[in-house]
Amino acid sequence: MTMMIGRVVAGVVMLWLACSAWADPLPSWRSGPVKTTITEFVETTTTPGDPNYLPESERVAVFDNDGTLWAEQPFYVQFAYAMERARNAEPGTLSEPLAKALKAGDVGAIMESGADSLIELLAVSHANLSVDEFQLDVARWLSQARHPETGLPYTRMAYQPMLELLRYLRDRRYRVYIVSGGGSDFIRAFSSELYGIPPNQVIGSLGNLEAVELDGRLVLMKRPGIAWLDDGLNKALAIERVIGQRPVLAVGNSDGDYPMLVWTTEGEGPRLGVLVHHTDKTREYAYDRDSHIGKLDKALDEVESRGWVRIDMARDWAQIYPQTP
Amino acid sequence: MTMMIGRVVAGVVMLWLACSAWADPLPSWRSGPVKTTITEFVETTTTPGDPNYLPESERVAVFDNDGTLWAEQPFYVQFAYAMERARNAEPGTLSEPLAKALKAGDVGAIMESGADSLIELLAVSHANLSVDEFQLDVARWLSQARHPETGLPYTRMAYQPMLELLRYLRDRRYRVYIVSGGGSDFIRAFSSELYGIPPNQVIGSLGNLEAVELDGRLVLMKRPGIAWLDDGLNKALAIERVIGQRPVLAVGNSDGDYPMLVWTTEGEGPRLGVLVHHTDKTREYAYDRDSHIGKLDKALDEVESRGWVRIDMARDWAQIYPQTP
Repeated sequence: MTMMIGRVVAGVVMLWLACSAWADPLPSWRSGPVKTTITEFVETTTTPGDPNYLPESERVAVFDNDGTLWAEQPFYVQFAYAMERARNAEPGTLSEPLAKALKAGDVGAIMESGADSLIELLAVSHANLSVDEFQLDVARWLSQARHPETGLPYTRMAYQPMLELLRYLRDRRYRVYIVSGGGSDFIRAFSSELYGIPPNQVIGSLGNLEAVELDGRLVLMKRPGIAWLDDGLNKALAIERVIGQRPVLAVGNSDGDYPMLVWTTEGEGPRLGVLVHHTDKTREYAYDRDSHIGKLDKALDEVESRGWVRIDMARDWAQIYPQTP
Repeated sequence: MTMMIGRVVAGVVMLWLACSAWADPLPSWRSGPVKTTITEFVETTTTPGDPNYLPESERVAVFDNDGTLWAEQPFYVQFAYAMERARNAEPGTLSEPLAKALKAGDVGAIMESGADSLIELLAVSHANLSVDEFQLDVARWLSQARHPETGLPYTRMAYQPMLELLRYLRDRRYRVYIVSGGGSDFIRAFSSELYGIPPNQVIGSLGNLEAVELDGRLVLMKRPGIAWLDDGLNKALAIERVIGQRPVLAVGNSDGDYPMLVWTTEGEGPRLGVLVHHTDKTREYAYDRDSHIGKLDKALDEVESRGWVRIDMARDWAQIYPQTP
C-alpha cells in the first residue's frame, strides 16, 4: 500500500517536472544569446546543487519602469497624467505660461519650460489630496486614457516579454522590485494588477507627505514639492535604504539606471545586469544616446566591459505589446 | 486504490489540523483577555470563511523595537553601542564635554547634554564607514556586549512572548515589519537572526548615506547627520512610503508609537492595536508617563476609547526573557 502511494506520488512529481521543463517561460523572446543568458541565470540561481544557487532570501531583482517595463515615448505616462489633471485645475491656480501651453496642448513647450514649470505641474496635479484619493484617480484615468500615437491604453503598452520575465522570476521565488524615477504613489496605483508587483516592492520618487487630522481621523496628504528623486545614484541609495540588500539582477534602459546596474553587478557571486535597448522604430521606438527621455549613453558604452546583457528590442523580442484580448 | 489513498491523505490532514489546534502558539503568555484577544485576531483573520478573514496580501503587522521587542532601559541598546564606539574614537575627534563624560562613564551627563552632543555622538560612531562595515561591527559588538544591569547579552533581552508572537504571525503568513526610532542599518545587523525579520521589513531612522567611488567600485558610505527620524508621525509616513499599505496590526510601547497605532486601527475591517505596558519592576522595569525613555502617556489614556489592548507585563507574561540555553 505504502509503496503504491509512493509510486503514484513519484509519477505525479515527474510529470510535473517534465511539464515545467517543456514549457518555455519566455515565449515572446526570440532564441539567441540574450534569452539564453537570462534563462541560464534564473535556472542556475534557483536550482539546488548548482554552484550559482541562491537561497530565496537572496533572490532580489530590481527593474526600472519607464522604458523598461512599459513604453516611455513620446513622454512619460505620469507626465500625461499630470497634464490632464492640470488642465482640469481650478482657473487661476496655474501660472500664465503653463496655462497657455496646456490650453494649446503644446507638450513640447511644457517639457522644455524648465524645472519651475514642471514642479508647478506636479504641485497642481499631485498634491493636496490623500494618497488613497490620488491612487483612485490615477486608476480611473488609466482606464480611459489613450497613448497619443498608438491609441492604446497605457497599460496595454507594457512589454509582453517583460511581463513573462516578471512572472518567470516570481515563479522561481524571486522578489522583484520596481525602482523607478516615477512616483511611488503613481506606480502603486497599477503595479499589482499590471505587473503582479505589490506596493511594498515599489521604490520610486516621493512627493512631500504630511500627516494631518481631518474630522478627527489621521489622513496622509500629498503636498507640493519633491522629497526624493529616485534616479541615478539615488536608485542605489534607495535600494539600500528600503531593501537593505544588494540585488542580484538589475534591469534598466537608461543612464539613470547605470548606478543601479553597477551596484547590483559589482556584488559577489552570480549577478546579472540587463539593458533594454530601444532599437525598433517600426514596432516601438528607436532611441539611445541623444534622446530627451531615457538617454542611454554611458551605460551602453560599458555593456561589454561589465559583462551586461543588451536586449536589442528589434532582434530579441518576437512581440512587443500583449495581444489584444 | 484511489479511495485508500484518499483516506490516508485525509487522515494525515486531520492529524495535522488536530496537532496545530493543540499546540499553544503563545506558551509564555498567561491566559486572560489579552492573550485571547490577540489569538482571536490572528485566528479569525487567517481562517478562510471567517467574516474577519484577510487575504495574505493584507496581513501586514508593524512592531516597534525598543521597549516592544526588547528592553530599552536604562538606555537604548544603540546608545550603548554609540558610546562604546565613541570611546574608541581617535583622540581629538570629540568635543571636550563629550570626551570628558565618556571617559567618566557618565551616561546621565551624555543623555542630558542636549541634541548637539547626541548628534556628535552619532556622527562619531555611525559615520564614515560603509553600511557593510558598520553592520559587521554592530554584530561583533552585540556578540560580546553586556547589559549594564542584568549582565545579559542584549540579544538575550528580547522578550520571549514577543518572539513567540512574531513566529505565530509568520506561520500565519503575516508580513511583519519593525518600525523603529532606531537606525535601520543598526537593526538589520541582528533582526534576521534574532526576530526572523529580513532587512526589507525593517523601517527605521536613516542616517545620511552617500554613494562614492572607491578603488573603481561603488561604495555606500554612512555620513554624519540624520536624514529621517522615524518616530511619532514619521512612523505613519514611513509605513505609507515603504509599505504603501495600511497595516492591520500595530504593536508599540510609547507615545512615539501612538500615530502608528492610530493610523493602523482607524482603517476599515479587522484591526488591532497593542500597547506593551512596562509594569514589572522585579523581572524587567516599571515605567510609563514620566519615563525619559519610552514615555507612555497619551497612548495609555486612549487605550479604552480606541479599543486597543494593553499588555500588562507583570500580569500577562509568564516569562520575560528567553531561558538560558
